[in-house]
Amino acid sequence: MQLSKFSLFAFLLAFQLSFSQKTPADYVNPFIGTSNFGATHPGAIAPRGMLSISPFNVSFYTKGIENPLEKDSRWLSNPYVNENTFLTGFTHVNMSGVGCPELGVIIAMPTTGKLETNHLKYGSTYKNEQASAGYYSTHIDKYNVKAEMTASMRAGVSRYHFPKGESNVLINLGLGLTNEQGAMVKIISPTEVQGVRMVGSFCYNSPELAYPVYFVAKLSKPADSYGVWHKPEKYEGVEAEWMLYNGKTRLKEGFTREVVGDSIGAYFRYKFDKEEVVEMKVGVSYVSIENARENLEKEIGNKSFTEVYEQTKNEWNKQFHVALEGGTDNQKTIFYTGLYHTLIHPHIFNDINGDYPQSSTNKIGKSNQRYTVFSLWDTYRNYHQLMTLLYPEQQLGMVRTMLDIYDESGWLPKWELNSTETFTMVGDPASIVLADTYLRGLTDFNIEKAYEAMLKGANTLKNNPIRLGVEEYWNLGYLSVDGGVAGPVSTTQEYNIADFAIAQLAKKLGKKKDFERFSKQSLSYRKLFDKQTKLLRPRHANGKWYAPFNPESGANFEKNVGYIEGNAWQYVYMVTHDVKGMMQMMGGAKAFEKQLDYIFDKGQYDMANEPDIAYPYLYNYIKGSEWKTQKRVHDLIEQYFQNKPAGLPGNEDTGVMSAWLIYGMMGFYPVSPGEPIYTFTSPKFNKITLTLDKKYYPNDELTIESNASPENIYIKRIFIDEKPYDSYFITHEQLKKAKKIRFELTNHK
Amino acid sequence: MQLSKFSLFAFLLAFQLSFSQKTPADYVNPFIGTSNFGATHPGAIAPRGMLSISPFNVSFYTKGIENPLEKDSRWLSNPYVNENTFLTGFTHVNMSGVGCPELGVIIAMPTTGKLETNHLKYGSTYKNEQASAGYYSTHIDKYNVKAEMTASMRAGVSRYHFPKGESNVLINLGLGLTNEQGAMVKIISPTEVQGVRMVGSFCYNSPELAYPVYFVAKLSKPADSYGVWHKPEKYEGVEAEWMLYNGKTRLKEGFTREVVGDSIGAYFRYKFDKEEVVEMKVGVSYVSIENARENLEKEIGNKSFTEVYEQTKNEWNKQFHVALEGGTDNQKTIFYTGLYHTLIHPHIFNDINGDYPQSSTNKIGKSNQRYTVFSLWDTYRNYHQLMTLLYPEQQLGMVRTMLDIYDESGWLPKWELNSTETFTMVGDPASIVLADTYLRGLTDFNIEKAYEAMLKGANTLKNNPIRLGVEEYWNLGYLSVDGGVAGPVSTTQEYNIADFAIAQLAKKLGKKKDFERFSKQSLSYRKLFDKQTKLLRPRHANGKWYAPFNPESGANFEKNVGYIEGNAWQYVYMVTHDVKGMMQMMGGAKAFEKQLDYIFDKGQYDMANEPDIAYPYLYNYIKGSEWKTQKRVHDLIEQYFQNKPAGLPGNEDTGVMSAWLIYGMMGFYPVSPGEPIYTFTSPKFNKITLTLDKKYYPNDELTIESNASPENIYIKRIFIDEKPYDSYFITHEQLKKAKKIRFELTNHK
Repeated sequence: MQLSKFSLFAFLLAFQLSFSQKTPADYVNPFIGTSNFGATHPGAIAPRGMLSISPFNVSFYTKGIENPLEKDSRWLSNPYVNENTFLTGFTHVNMSGVGCPELGVIIAMPTTGKLETNHLKYGSTYKNEQASAGYYSTHIDKYNVKAEMTASMRAGVSRYHFPKGESNVLINLGLGLTNEQGAMVKIISPTEVQGVRMVGSFCYNSPELAYPVYFVAKLSKPADSYGVWHKPEKYEGVEAEWMLYNGKTRLKEGFTREVVGDSIGAYFRYKFDKEEVVEMKVGVSYVSIENARENLEKEIGNKSFTEVYEQTKNEWNKQFHVALEGGTDNQKTIFYTGLYHTLIHPHIFNDINGDYPQSSTNKIGKSNQRYTVFSLWDTYRNYHQLMTLLYPEQQLGMVRTMLDIYDESGWLPKWELNSTETFTMVGDPASIVLADTYLRGLTDFNIEKAYEAMLKGANTLKNNPIRLGVEEYWNLGYLSVDGGVAGPVSTTQEYNIADFAIAQLAKKLGKKKDFERFSKQSLSYRKLFDKQTKLLRPRHANGKWYAPFNPESGANFEKNVGYIEGNAWQYVYMVTHDVKGMMQMMGGAKAFEKQLDYIFDKGQYDMANEPDIAYPYLYNYIKGSEWKTQKRVHDLIEQYFQNKPAGLPGNEDTGVMSAWLIYGMMGFYPVSPGEPIYTFTSPKFNKITLTLDKKYYPNDELTIESNASPENIYIKRIFIDEKPYDSYFITHEQLKKAKKIRFELTNHK
Repeated sequence: MQLSKFSLFAFLLAFQLSFSQKTPADYVNPFIGTSNFGATHPGAIAPRGMLSISPFNVSFYTKGIENPLEKDSRWLSNPYVNENTFLTGFTHVNMSGVGCPELGVIIAMPTTGKLETNHLKYGSTYKNEQASAGYYSTHIDKYNVKAEMTASMRAGVSRYHFPKGESNVLINLGLGLTNEQGAMVKIISPTEVQGVRMVGSFCYNSPELAYPVYFVAKLSKPADSYGVWHKPEKYEGVEAEWMLYNGKTRLKEGFTREVVGDSIGAYFRYKFDKEEVVEMKVGVSYVSIENARENLEKEIGNKSFTEVYEQTKNEWNKQFHVALEGGTDNQKTIFYTGLYHTLIHPHIFNDINGDYPQSSTNKIGKSNQRYTVFSLWDTYRNYHQLMTLLYPEQQLGMVRTMLDIYDESGWLPKWELNSTETFTMVGDPASIVLADTYLRGLTDFNIEKAYEAMLKGANTLKNNPIRLGVEEYWNLGYLSVDGGVAGPVSTTQEYNIADFAIAQLAKKLGKKKDFERFSKQSLSYRKLFDKQTKLLRPRHANGKWYAPFNPESGANFEKNVGYIEGNAWQYVYMVTHDVKGMMQMMGGAKAFEKQLDYIFDKGQYDMANEPDIAYPYLYNYIKGSEWKTQKRVHDLIEQYFQNKPAGLPGNEDTGVMSAWLIYGMMGFYPVSPGEPIYTFTSPKFNKITLTLDKKYYPNDELTIESNASPENIYIKRIFIDEKPYDSYFITHEQLKKAKKIRFELTNHK
């Protein structure tokens, strides 16, 4: 009965898909970014979902080709790598496109036959992977089991198609992508289990902030038997001699009290006399088991797998505020997948009842829009600008979350994860996001508090966890190589950009003195400009240049004296607030352009990381060379963004790579963070319709039209609401008033 | 205010102690048995309490003299050893007088100054130890803190006298006597914490049955700060390179969600501007945290330390059903301490609401008299006979618990601990206890079920977890050295005694055929009698004697082919149901006596273990040599039972050594388990008054009078109710009808 009901749904779904137009969600290819260290996962997830169900295939390593990337054999940030082939389950909390291993826990796995709890033994190859927005499925070879999964915001459903015979559902709480350990599990009934898994110490920072994630799992069919397994650490005392069981896994058949340990799991066993489908629904929470249960009940309850999937797919389509005409299917796929990737993090962190763990206070807060995963060193550059335009309500939720974090912890976030500050990366990026958002007209947040928070970060000279070395920065204008702060050149630049953003906000708020002070300080990076090399160069506190200076050192994440995740070439133009100043220092537009060309032509440009992410757009500052922006952006998209697992240039960085792509395909880019402007490039579709939120924008829509084609990649003319527009720059204010931007493109520069 | 209230109580207590008569509880010296591997602990405990608070001083080892006995450096079964000097806290669940390390967890420690969570660093020497029934205190040198503790049935109170300054209360959930690991902790408020600690795999058996113990702790003063510590296992992957914190302890200041791990704990910190007393109340449960909280609330609630202690001390006095006159204070001390030791295990396992975890079913049962810790190989020999006489209601509770275990698990217990069967030791001892209890007139339990359970154990030839090798036993009459059963000679003897007990019960129940069959089988050990050595000797299945045969092999727990924890000398007379048969096989009373003398005189007698525990009484079977029983028992008491930490012959074995002592000092002994008889020896007090339960016994009291003195150790005449009595044996029926037994003693044999 249940099976036939499902078949009917499947039929209707298939019917709908084949006869109706393709929706934006249908274009999403979640496999993009699952190779080439894109670090995305192909799992099922709702927009900004707290829970996702991803295949986990990174915990088996052979020197052969089978599973080339193993989580413990190298730095690996994702639960799934496309080129791996050995599946050991499906994780229920995950991050996508981040740079450190974390979460990837609560691992479920359907198996058949005898119970086996060792993932190295129960793991399997798989085939027929399918993934779309909110859905993932694969066929597990070893067990002839098809596993499907879908998700709502805080809960998920897996559907296992078991063959006749003995079957098992494993919930492995030992294995995980995180480097934290420790779990608790308690079986409630033949259909229910609850537990806790410790996670934390993201990027090997703040291990003392490790915290629990709670879950409740419910099965659609009562298990014939169930239990818990526990494999304790091998004992080494004298007494180990008597432990015949030392280091062996223990099966606690039927056990229903709590079991605690580093390597534990729960199993549910079935004996089927025909093919059967078992659905497992899982709710999670970072507050409590009770909340995990409530999240599950209220979001999914008795809904079927298909109902949940349909609802989530609809939600995805509602979120894609951009309609496309023209372009190829592949272009639409990379665009919508990009947009999909920008809608994964930051994600909702509060439970359905509003509970969330506050930052630093150890209290439970209440909010219906608490976000988490603020990778701000990445996202201040373009991501939040995109959110401001397309999702102002969400952007405001993020900004308000940042202010709540300030209220809770005393500081704005830098790299926030699940209400813990991980202190990853450098700079003072939150100030830029807050100022930029306000300056773009989203003012519905406490700007006085925001401003106070920015000043605290900028001005606190001692024990400042955000702006390390800030005292020297104010004194010298730069961070010296002697001050002990990592990447003193880059960090000086980051502080300068933040100070620029604060200055712009100060101006807007009428705080003239602050405007002047921060404006002046925002140019202090100039003290690091070395005329000889025309690069920014590490410098001693006494003013001497650091030597020997190798500008190329620092590429490919190599550690170096001056820079964070980059070299002198990748940082020298990261002065988007002072492009003209840099141009002048370099000796004018020609010299500026020559060096920029050199970077691209000599392979010094790194598309896979953020410092030089705006470089292709800097040609727009050189009159007559704007075509180079169009060409460079076009070529970079062609080269790095493709409809394939390796279709991202590198780490997705929580939506920043995709935001870059989306802007590039739409024809404009927020080139200077903290400054509400865009600069143009050639769009990739004939018609792009942005749905805007009337609450914040004067028009319902902004249309971008063009005669884009594979050849027409150069801008001939630009029309705003059919009036010729004679600049390659436009303010956010102008853009939001426009109803249509039309590009007349041509096939030659 | 609180302090002065306490002072008043202390004053009143001191007043009462100095001006009132010494109560039995005042004689108890809980330090007896804390050395010489007695394995008792001196902690605070109520009669048959589920919780006890013991000092824990077995986790620091130096090759010098400081802490000679360390838990991981050797087989050590106790949380405290008197000769150790390094205290690392106070454990809240403990066993006393058992042969394997277990429990000894939920370790609290008061410290001062900077927070230190490593027990090797926070540990301290101590002095001024005081212990009495329900009370323990000591002065912790390093911190100048006096720590006192008392306990109710399922909860306890510790009182820490802190000096002015910074103070800490640590609850260490990593450290423990058990070999299990894993804990969960959650701080509820500045005065409350709850958690779980895994324990189990007693005697390295049944590790898959490891289970949680739950606790709730409440502090009398809100902490100024608090938190959780977690020291994860050292990570060893490639990623360990980035873990600057690898293997280091993390302090989670103020953390209030669950923390799970192998090495975790909670801390509460105070800053006092004067001396302050902090009370910590702890409730435990084996069912749930909620039940631990309810146990705490209902048993202790708002009661003060002094109120709890007074109540528990009164409870102890109520339980001491024996009044003594004459004898020395030391004699009274060893007697009452012995009685105290018999009232520790078995203990109550159900929560105050009746909940307890059932055996094997994974269900929660309901009972208000569920007992645990059935070390039946030990206790069938004399312990339960003493309980039957002095505590019939409790003995019935134990018997009913054994039948509940049978209902739950399908088998009678063998060595039960917290509803897990540990399968420690050999034989079928539960049958003996059940039969013996019934035959002594305690019949208020389901004897049909008991009989069914006995027959199941005796007759199930395959997959019998209790009587290993039972098929061979029925076929050959003995377990052969080829059958794979440990200690085939001893185990044959154990089965014989059980069969004898079953036979006696069968007779009583009118089951004639069973009586005949089991009576016959109970003598099958005779097939192991080797005429040459006059010993019981290991034998092959084909009838050949096992060779080479070294009768001395097996002493001091040395492993050997024939015997469990003993050698041929220590087992040959363990045929208390067939003493006359053995006498005959040996060639008559003379030969029997000669060999018995040899055992005592050549040091083959082991007072520290159970197989030969009845030997001193066997002279009563030899007409004219009964004085030797009196002399041997007297000398053994003098030699092995003393008012000092090393005042037990060896492991207390959950009250069996003490039961032997109590009987020996009262003048009679239940020489043949399963047979409701006693045999006499000379009592050690002038008047011993046993309070009997009118519900089960015809008289309120039984008085034993004598002219006992250090010299008068020989029996001249015995009078029962002033009528001369001409036997050294008396049935239980006769004894219970008697109001007075009077011994006329003399100083010569």
